[in-house]
Amino acid sequence: MHRSRVGCIVIDCQTDDLSEPLAFWSQALGAPGDVDQDGKYAKLDMPSGSPAVLLQAVDHPARVHLDVETDDKDGERERLTALGATEVARVKGWIVMEAPTGHRFCIVGPQGGDFPARAAEWGER
Amino acid sequence: MHRSRVGCIVIDCQTDDLSEPLAFWSQALGAPGDVDQDGKYAKLDMPSGSPAVLLQAVDHPARVHLDVETDDKDGERERLTALGATEVARVKGWIVMEAPTGHRFCIVGPQGGDFPARAAEWGER
Repeated sequence: MHRSRVGCIVIDCQTDDLSEPLAFWSQALGAPGDVDQDGKYAKLDMPSGSPAVLLQAVDHPARVHLDVETDDKDGERERLTALGATEVARVKGWIVMEAPTGHRFCIVGPQGGDFPARAAEWGER
Repeated sequence: MHRSRVGCIVIDCQTDDLSEPLAFWSQALGAPGDVDQDGKYAKLDMPSGSPAVLLQAVDHPARVHLDVETDDKDGERERLTALGATEVARVKGWIVMEAPTGHRFCIVGPQGGDFPARAAEWGER
């Protein structure tokens, strides 16, 4: 048995410097945030009950993608592959996937402190 | 004064027929759903506390976009334009915008029954 749920909404920004994207999105969504030490991410401090939103500095064109949080990344990859998704890459601790609809998304480990709240449970592999 | 908050995560699928995208995404995210009568949308029945997720049949390539819900669409457009966003189009009741980061998003009226929970308040226009 493993569990998964929708995690962060990740706003991929094609930039080396997240300060301007952060200025826009934090004001647009009414959520302050800080760029992390290596300049790669900025998490917005969203109101309680709102979806988590993360800015990421990337090389590719602007995109929004979903993270799927799980306590078993390989089990989740296997489950989603059986549904028609394909593995694109492994980057650091996460698995980049492409849905049959063409959307990229990532399988990541538990991020929110409240995991597995709201997570679905999946049967034996 | 007007209010806004992050609304739906919209998964735009390049298709005339949402049934296969719905089959994938509803199983992937563990949330059932139905395609609406005109075949254009399918709302996923997400667990309580999860972000709202909507599939939309579109002509353009696959994309994920955010909806910003507000009780004053023109006021919100004005606020976001001052932050650097541009208006792209008006479609039915909503306003399609592009962020300075290149991401499309929509300004829509209140969708969730709990609006204005979690919404930010913005001052006089």
